[in-house]
Amino acid sequence: MPLAGEDRVKLQSLQSFVAEELISFEHEYETLLNGELELLGQICEHLKQGKSKRFRPTLVLIASKNGSEMHPDAAFAAACVELVHTATLVHDDFIDDAATRRRLPTVNVKWGPAAALIMGDFLYTKVFSLLTARGMEDAMRIIAATTHRMSVAEMMQLESRSCLDLPEEDYFTIISEKTACLIAASCEIGSLFHPGLQHHRPALSAFGQNLGMAFQITDDIFDYRGDPKRLGKPVGGDWREGRITLPFIAAWRNASAPLKARLRKAMVAGPDEPRLWAEVREMVHQNGGLEYASKMAAHYGERAKESLHALGPHPQTAILNDAVDYVLRRLN
Amino acid sequence: MPLAGEDRVKLQSLQSFVAEELISFEHEYETLLNGELELLGQICEHLKQGKSKRFRPTLVLIASKNGSEMHPDAAFAAACVELVHTATLVHDDFIDDAATRRRLPTVNVKWGPAAALIMGDFLYTKVFSLLTARGMEDAMRIIAATTHRMSVAEMMQLESRSCLDLPEEDYFTIISEKTACLIAASCEIGSLFHPGLQHHRPALSAFGQNLGMAFQITDDIFDYRGDPKRLGKPVGGDWREGRITLPFIAAWRNASAPLKARLRKAMVAGPDEPRLWAEVREMVHQNGGLEYASKMAAHYGERAKESLHALGPHPQTAILNDAVDYVLRRLN
Repeated sequence: MPLAGEDRVKLQSLQSFVAEELISFEHEYETLLNGELELLGQICEHLKQGKSKRFRPTLVLIASKNGSEMHPDAAFAAACVELVHTATLVHDDFIDDAATRRRLPTVNVKWGPAAALIMGDFLYTKVFSLLTARGMEDAMRIIAATTHRMSVAEMMQLESRSCLDLPEEDYFTIISEKTACLIAASCEIGSLFHPGLQHHRPALSAFGQNLGMAFQITDDIFDYRGDPKRLGKPVGGDWREGRITLPFIAAWRNASAPLKARLRKAMVAGPDEPRLWAEVREMVHQNGGLEYASKMAAHYGERAKESLHALGPHPQTAILNDAVDYVLRRLN
Repeated sequence: MPLAGEDRVKLQSLQSFVAEELISFEHEYETLLNGELELLGQICEHLKQGKSKRFRPTLVLIASKNGSEMHPDAAFAAACVELVHTATLVHDDFIDDAATRRRLPTVNVKWGPAAALIMGDFLYTKVFSLLTARGMEDAMRIIAATTHRMSVAEMMQLESRSCLDLPEEDYFTIISEKTACLIAASCEIGSLFHPGLQHHRPALSAFGQNLGMAFQITDDIFDYRGDPKRLGKPVGGDWREGRITLPFIAAWRNASAPLKARLRKAMVAGPDEPRLWAEVREMVHQNGGLEYASKMAAHYGERAKESLHALGPHPQTAILNDAVDYVLRRLN
């Protein structure tokens, strides 16, 4: 049932469409996020405590849902996608030297950087190992290509750290390859299990790609604007970690030359210089950074909806449209 | 042609058996170890300079060699195995905080820990991505399971760092899962391309597993004994990085109680306390650590040769026996 009439689409409403499937997913994820070794087991338990919103598995399950039937591999595939997401977060937190994630200490802080590196490797290779052992070649191919693209984007992001003049195209490339592609993979993998959607794989992938762009842009807006629902993440985290995002890029081109010169000079001490964040935030708010980024998020949201036209009238269309509204209306 | 008559089997002699195939391998490896991004490209070039002995690809190619015919995928698979090996070294050097590898600065030192982490992820996922894109499902399954086992062993090794009372069984588990399993994978993957060896996959895998055990034990002996051919690696590196290996484990149980107490006390400052290495080395030499480890290496060498019995008279048997002699006679 479409939820477009509501002012704000809640994630729970989307998830109610696949409520039973999500229970199966939770069971699979609980089972798979495990390690035979004591230290691995401890870290897995810790990761389970910092529960995500299950956005990616929800998309896998929505795309795979065919009436009341559930493909036996769908929940398993959703768990694999979530494991990949968890692995990237563990490695990301190490790269960003982040201290907390979902209000808990990060693996790198609690067990040290070496354990964080190995833990990520453990989770990635577990997914590959599970998918190949189960003979899920299509899902494997998608996840292998996706994680590889993500690693290239990580390097690109590292290369462009604290680059105040980061071109907008480079920002879009980074978020496309780092965030959107796993959301695209989620939708595409889900469609593998739906007899009526299999031949729409490219459309589902394009939908996820555009949805993922909108998702990341809104996330990047929150980092400048603050959002009461994101209490686990402090505002300004992206800036302090040297991640130049769309609100900044858009505002920077509108900023006056003297302001630019002053901020450039202040940057010498590094982006985590305490007073700098207040100035940067002000610069972004005053120079239309948030408005521009919101406009771009809406643009990708529109493109996501357009990607669904290829499906024709299909039971999935309404709920996937709602997923777009959920992502965009988080801003309201 | 068997080389057992010689006192010391040279790696070049083994490699002459697959000379042409190794040229194809080098071409594949050169092509695959590449990154579209500038920073990725630079790191790839750096990694190419620190050339390995090509032991694992040599085994892939020996196992795959069927007369003068060469399976078109064999050199590609050998390159994938070498990429996995390279990825593990990049991550290992980060974990061990190593400064040099093959006389060159490590990636973590030259480009920083974040780049080292991403580079390893890039290489691993590249292999998975390449193998799945090429539809090489068997090789993919073997490599996925192998890299997963390796990550568990890495964590086990991290957990047991500087543990003076590391049980011998734990040491064997670590080297079996961390080193031997990739050598087993090399032999097994090679056999996939040989029509006469495909049904001997388990035997080839067992051969590689035992060979890999002998290989790691001899490597661990070199770290206490020194070896002029290993100039790129300083003696005592394992100890200083907290890696407790067989020569130490064996000697430690023979050491006198006062000596043990004294070393335990000295360890408080950590294994890289400068004077400690000289004492530990002396302890290992005086208490039969090297003899015991050599005996165990020979034992696994024997088991490797026995694993080949399943093949019956086969052109591969002689050269694989030579591979065992090469590994063991490095000690002479």
